[in-house]
Amino acid sequence: MSLTTSSPLTSAQAASLASHALSILPVESRNAALTAIHTALQTAKPDILAANAKDMTLATRASQNGELSQSVLKRLDLSRPGKYEDMLKGILDVRALPDPIGKVDLRTKLDEGLELERVSCPIGVLLIIFEARPEVIANISALAIKSGNAAILKGGKESSHSFEAIATVISKALAGTDVPSEAIQLVKTRDVIDELLGLDRYIDLVIPRGGNELVRYVKDHTKIPVLGHADGLCSVYLHKDADQVKDIAVKVVVDSKCDYPAACNSAETLLVHEDVLKTVLPDVASALLRRGVSLRCDGQSKAALQETLSKSDAAILQAASEEDFTTEFLDLVMAVKTVPASLPSTTMNGTHSSSDPSASAIDPSLHLAISHINTHSSHHTDTIVTASSPAAEKFLSAIDSAGVYWNASTRFADGMRYGFGTEVGISTNKIHSRGPVGLEGLTIYKYKVRGRGQGAGDYGEGEGQRAFLHEKLDTAG
Amino acid sequence: MSLTTSSPLTSAQAASLASHALSILPVESRNAALTAIHTALQTAKPDILAANAKDMTLATRASQNGELSQSVLKRLDLSRPGKYEDMLKGILDVRALPDPIGKVDLRTKLDEGLELERVSCPIGVLLIIFEARPEVIANISALAIKSGNAAILKGGKESSHSFEAIATVISKALAGTDVPSEAIQLVKTRDVIDELLGLDRYIDLVIPRGGNELVRYVKDHTKIPVLGHADGLCSVYLHKDADQVKDIAVKVVVDSKCDYPAACNSAETLLVHEDVLKTVLPDVASALLRRGVSLRCDGQSKAALQETLSKSDAAILQAASEEDFTTEFLDLVMAVKTVPASLPSTTMNGTHSSSDPSASAIDPSLHLAISHINTHSSHHTDTIVTASSPAAEKFLSAIDSAGVYWNASTRFADGMRYGFGTEVGISTNKIHSRGPVGLEGLTIYKYKVRGRGQGAGDYGEGEGQRAFLHEKLDTAG
Repeated sequence: MSLTTSSPLTSAQAASLASHALSILPVESRNAALTAIHTALQTAKPDILAANAKDMTLATRASQNGELSQSVLKRLDLSRPGKYEDMLKGILDVRALPDPIGKVDLRTKLDEGLELERVSCPIGVLLIIFEARPEVIANISALAIKSGNAAILKGGKESSHSFEAIATVISKALAGTDVPSEAIQLVKTRDVIDELLGLDRYIDLVIPRGGNELVRYVKDHTKIPVLGHADGLCSVYLHKDADQVKDIAVKVVVDSKCDYPAACNSAETLLVHEDVLKTVLPDVASALLRRGVSLRCDGQSKAALQETLSKSDAAILQAASEEDFTTEFLDLVMAVKTVPASLPSTTMNGTHSSSDPSASAIDPSLHLAISHINTHSSHHTDTIVTASSPAAEKFLSAIDSAGVYWNASTRFADGMRYGFGTEVGISTNKIHSRGPVGLEGLTIYKYKVRGRGQGAGDYGEGEGQRAFLHEKLDTAG
Repeated sequence: MSLTTSSPLTSAQAASLASHALSILPVESRNAALTAIHTALQTAKPDILAANAKDMTLATRASQNGELSQSVLKRLDLSRPGKYEDMLKGILDVRALPDPIGKVDLRTKLDEGLELERVSCPIGVLLIIFEARPEVIANISALAIKSGNAAILKGGKESSHSFEAIATVISKALAGTDVPSEAIQLVKTRDVIDELLGLDRYIDLVIPRGGNELVRYVKDHTKIPVLGHADGLCSVYLHKDADQVKDIAVKVVVDSKCDYPAACNSAETLLVHEDVLKTVLPDVASALLRRGVSLRCDGQSKAALQETLSKSDAAILQAASEEDFTTEFLDLVMAVKTVPASLPSTTMNGTHSSSDPSASAIDPSLHLAISHINTHSSHHTDTIVTASSPAAEKFLSAIDSAGVYWNASTRFADGMRYGFGTEVGISTNKIHSRGPVGLEGLTIYKYKVRGRGQGAGDYGEGEGQRAFLHEKLDTAG
């Protein structure tokens, strides 16, 4: 690894060349590099936390002046209980994972002596731009090295002390390994993001790790594919039979909203079937209010809660605007919307139902909830609370999101929790990788063909031409 | 299917809504739609060929006036022997393929009563922009329907008669099936490409099928992911021992160049190890010249050929410029470059070799050939001719292309030949799909979690918190 002050172009060219060498290193060499990084980061914990404390002091001041959000402040803090250990454990988890490179997942005998094979390989050069989470350097370096990719890392100013401290440690650790020094480039120079984003000839994938402004900026300013998500607008839907699973409803909503409100997988919208407005919603609302959540309710849900909650609780309910249902609060705020029990008559003959014959097959209200989520959510993670398996399965099939859950908190959308080791991020893209992205998302494949001099002109339906065998072969062999 | 003159926005919105209905149709309904399309296209062959003949008349005139290239003309012609039958067969091939939707490829028990599952699903809405190949409408409609995706098709003016004829037939055929009519939109309106490319809210993937100018234009004018390739600059490398497999060398080079020069998987560059300039190259060159190929040679290969070829053959050799090694001729032209037997001394101490310790591990000349291809080719398909298995395997590992071949023609890079049924195109992207893209490339996945009300806060290393099981479950079950 090198902590570079050279130009983005020079860095990217060097990373591209190094990626070719890294791509053919055996897994033992890549794992040895991870061991070296882990040991070095463990030893250097006090120094790195001291550097992080400097960043925290500056950031706390900026936050007090209103120049930095609370959520960024939380993400920056490496001294939060378990955070440093999670970072270290993430490196070992990645090391323990099977080698993602060289896996053959398709083998076909095209003809005698003509075999096709599809083999996983690294993508090439990754550009990671991050704001406040300093542990991302360690995570991403581990994932990049394990998957045989070169990486260019560009940190934000909030984490500059932490970044430099971690980078220096990793840099020293890598020097004694087989991983080429230019394979992990740490760019310190400021104001070079636009230049980096223009280097589509050398950089194959950009992964922005930060707030939605950063992600949107990156998406708008590059032709390089971007892996990530600008928004995390997750929803919980309480179905009409949620009174049969009221404890689950309370548990799932409270955890989805309150476990870590600054996270992208926290819920922002609560959809409530009108049948359970007075049976389930009051308990859910009380639990949320006790945790300090501000509730922004539509008319019907607000009226139901005003009837059922204590006067003091009812008094702090807020009215929801349409905008609240497309807002990622990243804070202790939740928008509440009522799902009517039946389809409003106007939509029954509209384009919508005509283009979706299954619309009211199971339950018109379920369809309304699905439609609301498909048109308002950010396709990140959405959950239904219900006792009905058919309703749940319909929801899981029809919701167009990376994560679709039944009776579980949206907060499970995470690479560690899914068992992928550490993650590069969560993708709401519709291609390549969706949801928490681990090692697999950093690989692609190539097709190898081994022949004996065959030409494509030998095959066909003409006279004297051969037919392909297309015989599936065992991929283990 | 509808042949629409409505605005791009209206089309895209309707396609988006229809995609949700299509995404949950059972495979029986999707296959029945393919049967209907196949039968209708078979019946309507005379009408469609008559329409195609009109396009060909106009295009031939344009070609004679120099307004249209020969290669576009060839692509437009549906009456070429076997082309119509291939189109029809492609639909049945796609129908016969296993359902790509609903495949579970990962199941994990996160905890008792908390299961994670990864399931394949459609991407959503595809936008296909094509120029001259009218059969693409049938191919793409089949692939889109089978994979549960909605598609917006925009044809070029060269194929407008063929396009309209095929579209009308498909449209009538689909009317009697379960596939929603708005799921396949055929946009006839002209000059709407820019507007379509701006609809990233409704369109998930763009697939341009046409010349490199079209593909480059599309890539430069949209934020929607683009699947395809702008260039098909494929190479054949004759290694130093190619004299041991001279027949293979001749066969592979001639088929790669001459089988169908207008195709993206045709070879444009011939790299020749200097040891075989006088033993193998002359036979290869004679065979190419007999097929009418113009050879653009570097100094060393030209000198070798002038010594060994007949006077008349030697007289028509051309000198190569640097530009010829980055040019996709798409015609009977081939650039020939010599690969020196040893590394020039100047690069021995350069950055290049320092960042790639394996550079000269097997053979410095092999490394030079690999470097040339990795920096000059379009990462489409490249082949080596050699008797040496270690040299071949080194080439297959180190070349960063979608297809890497040993002793086989580059022309095999094709979805039909790979056994994928018909293809949507060939991708030189480094993410999602690479090489010939069939059904699989039109799918993504979602993560389903089924729980009993668990919250993420229940898990961790704190007091009273649970640990994840992360137990792999059988994906068949």
